[in-house]
Amino acid sequence: MKPLAVALGDPAGIGPEIVAKAWAAGRDTGLPPFFAVGDAAAIGAVWDGPVRRISDPDEATRIFGDALPLIHLDGDGPVEPGEPKLEGARTALDSLELAAGIVRSGSAGALVTAPVAKAQLYAIGFRHPGQTEFVAERCGIAEDNAVMMLMGAGLKVVPLTTHVPLMDVTSLLSVELVVAKSRVLVRGLARNFGIERPRLAFAGLNPHAGESGKIGREELEILLPAIMELRAEGIDARGPFAADTMFHASARATYDAAICTYHDQALIPLKTIAFEEGVNMTLGLPIVRTAPDHGTAFGIAGQDKADHRAMTAAIRVAAEAAQCRARRAAA
Amino acid sequence: MKPLAVALGDPAGIGPEIVAKAWAAGRDTGLPPFFAVGDAAAIGAVWDGPVRRISDPDEATRIFGDALPLIHLDGDGPVEPGEPKLEGARTALDSLELAAGIVRSGSAGALVTAPVAKAQLYAIGFRHPGQTEFVAERCGIAEDNAVMMLMGAGLKVVPLTTHVPLMDVTSLLSVELVVAKSRVLVRGLARNFGIERPRLAFAGLNPHAGESGKIGREELEILLPAIMELRAEGIDARGPFAADTMFHASARATYDAAICTYHDQALIPLKTIAFEEGVNMTLGLPIVRTAPDHGTAFGIAGQDKADHRAMTAAIRVAAEAAQCRARRAAA
Repeated sequence: MKPLAVALGDPAGIGPEIVAKAWAAGRDTGLPPFFAVGDAAAIGAVWDGPVRRISDPDEATRIFGDALPLIHLDGDGPVEPGEPKLEGARTALDSLELAAGIVRSGSAGALVTAPVAKAQLYAIGFRHPGQTEFVAERCGIAEDNAVMMLMGAGLKVVPLTTHVPLMDVTSLLSVELVVAKSRVLVRGLARNFGIERPRLAFAGLNPHAGESGKIGREELEILLPAIMELRAEGIDARGPFAADTMFHASARATYDAAICTYHDQALIPLKTIAFEEGVNMTLGLPIVRTAPDHGTAFGIAGQDKADHRAMTAAIRVAAEAAQCRARRAAA
Repeated sequence: MKPLAVALGDPAGIGPEIVAKAWAAGRDTGLPPFFAVGDAAAIGAVWDGPVRRISDPDEATRIFGDALPLIHLDGDGPVEPGEPKLEGARTALDSLELAAGIVRSGSAGALVTAPVAKAQLYAIGFRHPGQTEFVAERCGIAEDNAVMMLMGAGLKVVPLTTHVPLMDVTSLLSVELVVAKSRVLVRGLARNFGIERPRLAFAGLNPHAGESGKIGREELEILLPAIMELRAEGIDARGPFAADTMFHASARATYDAAICTYHDQALIPLKTIAFEEGVNMTLGLPIVRTAPDHGTAFGIAGQDKADHRAMTAAIRVAAEAAQCRARRAAA
């Protein structure tokens, strides 16, 4: 397999540190070869381990046992961990664009992205809600067809709506949206995980999934028609279920992915059981893309406090998904 | 301590079975003495262990090692497990009323209630949302001053709104409601658990707790003013926090109770980590009252499949709370 490309994210965030730590831990734990894409100064500011600059992704595999391979991008000034700057946002965006391009070209097996600072990105003219949508555009995929899935501790969740006020959720849900995202999810679970007929469990929006319309009607008017339509297509869609009884261990064993109506319905259970190792995977793209499910954590950047486990999990999951795609392509 | 009174709930639900199983397991695990209140036929239909009818709660402590003590109430016909009837709802209500009265009178140390069937209760004219409100009324407490707290696996959560459509939550929240329920919670944590200055963590309503107003304004307009008011009263109120990062183990260690804006925000994390042993406790009452956090489960009633762990936990928690109150009263 080709090595993975890991964009360092904001140079002043914890991205450089957790990528370096993942490399250091990964030599012992058998993490697949990867290379970082970003400013060498960002790593140098927080880590004194071996870094080797490369110009060709193919060099990464050979070097990986001895040093963290890096495709260097000149930053626009000094890096101060914990101090986000507009220049850093530009470096982060350049790194993301280059890493995505390398993966798109086939020179790397999958894309992993460290966290960026959205406020700074917006200030330099970034127009996408986040990295997911940017990568989708670079892949020629409409934003709406890129589906965010969060995973950890054996649980996979998809929030149908994300960073919107809770009271706007109903107005954003529709049968079409639920069906479209579910189709992307089904295809993504097959391509990236080899789950050929995934069991999808839908969470109701209201308490007790609305109790047959007594506590809200979104289940009857949106979720149930969508589930019926998916079933008619041969998709194993189940529910809507009461969200509070879907996420304990024995319930989780009954489905491959939970489709949730809003951000916290998906993220509360995931982060409750997999806080340190949550992975964000984008489905619907021609490439595999993952990210650790946390932010830049400027408050602890440069203090050797950052936990690399989510980054390590993101790299491992990306590699496994890329291998799964390769097996299927060869079959 | 006085024995506890355990109302059997709907005779056709799993209540009689889990009370009997809790007694059987409790002799070995040192569960404090309790007596059941309900129809002997309901227990006889699902369990062949020893039952001894009593007429005075004081007899329960002496008998408890040999048989399940029972204050018998004649049911209004035969009991068929799994087949809810209006007669059964009447028996459940009579049992609840008698058990609550015994606890109110001081003859029992605390009240534990098995699940009832609300549809059947409504059909016989029951006008309260649930047992909590009925018990509150019998205690002379306004419904709004009775606060439902769910607990398990070290986590305590209070939902500020309960069985209402999610899209109605904002219209039901107010600074007054948040402050009033929090005061009841603070007093209840002191009386029932001896936590003299509880740390209250408030969950935001919106994703990321609204990101300073960028994703919804309920945090700024309702939760923050309420927190400020509580702090001015000397209460350790914190937040509002992003709900998705409040419930992993290390976050849970930072507070005594989480106050959540809606049903699933409180119940998803609780049931994810404590599905088999969730306890519902009513705060704000002159008596201690708990219940297992599950329903009648008519679908498995009478099949020896019901899990008694939540009932056992409800009994244990009630006894500990009653002992805490007694210690404080004596001090």
